[in-house]
Amino acid sequence: MPSPVWSIGTYDAAGAPSLMTVAWGGICCSKPPAVSISLREATYTCAGLVEHKAFTINIPSTRHVGAVDLVGVTSGRDGDKFKAAGLTVVASDLVDALYVREFPLNLECRLVDSLKPGLHTFFVGEIADVKADEDVLGSDGCPSVARVQPFTFVVTEESCYALDDHMGSAFAAKKGATS
Amino acid sequence: MPSPVWSIGTYDAAGAPSLMTVAWGGICCSKPPAVSISLREATYTCAGLVEHKAFTINIPSTRHVGAVDLVGVTSGRDGDKFKAAGLTVVASDLVDALYVREFPLNLECRLVDSLKPGLHTFFVGEIADVKADEDVLGSDGCPSVARVQPFTFVVTEESCYALDDHMGSAFAAKKGATS
Repeated sequence: MPSPVWSIGTYDAAGAPSLMTVAWGGICCSKPPAVSISLREATYTCAGLVEHKAFTINIPSTRHVGAVDLVGVTSGRDGDKFKAAGLTVVASDLVDALYVREFPLNLECRLVDSLKPGLHTFFVGEIADVKADEDVLGSDGCPSVARVQPFTFVVTEESCYALDDHMGSAFAAKKGATS
Repeated sequence: MPSPVWSIGTYDAAGAPSLMTVAWGGICCSKPPAVSISLREATYTCAGLVEHKAFTINIPSTRHVGAVDLVGVTSGRDGDKFKAAGLTVVASDLVDALYVREFPLNLECRLVDSLKPGLHTFFVGEIADVKADEDVLGSDGCPSVARVQPFTFVVTEESCYALDDHMGSAFAAKKGATS
């Protein structure tokens, strides 16, 4: 605990757009910049991701929690998730996948490796592009947590939590020691 | 964003205890239950983890942010981190590693696989044991977020954030549809 909440965008084998919500993912490498997600083979997204060797990570804001929940509990096999959740599909620029226009932060990822420790397969995606809405950028030009308003999932409680207080900068001990 | 904040406990090649703070980690498999962490090979912890094929994940509470920060910015090569941070080392029961008594939630993990997508190596640990302080357990006997008070790290801001509002249960859409 706690895990991020990400929506994964892929095309299926027939080229139809698919979206799935995952909480088991994270940054896994700095050079090259790469992220990882864990999926069960049985999911619709898993097959499409392997077929197209690409996926997007779409980071929702707290205001999207209802749409994310709807995406999380329905299968791409059951119809058009995007329409039901009020989300718009946009074709990725650099990889063979799609992203969600309404979510403020989108990563286009190229599948570079995988590992299967058990029921879940772990996929490594090299980040080919990052798209951020202009209104979530801070004064440094990077996405700001206060503006993106991402949220987290706690599996044992099946619950989502927003982020609260900025607890201060990390590495304060080092900065104090060297200043 | 956002990433969890975990302290990783290992023994070094000489058998001395070592502790490192990581933010790049997460759950990666349900059967068997497994977690993953990403480390640079240059770290002291990486060598010990590979040598002993084991590590612990120690989940701190918000009140431990100072200790975690201190652990995060000093190397095991530079002396006794535990003493400096006011933390107590306890030998793990089931794996060849150590855990931190003061942190409310500890996972003992057996190294089962790894992958090297680039500068960071990604390690998969099968969870051999979970230890939780009694006072962080909820009425269902599971660790409660409200009691553990874990926190998150946002790398682009080099900042930590606590969790805020309980945004409601996930899978609400499904529950609503089936009730």
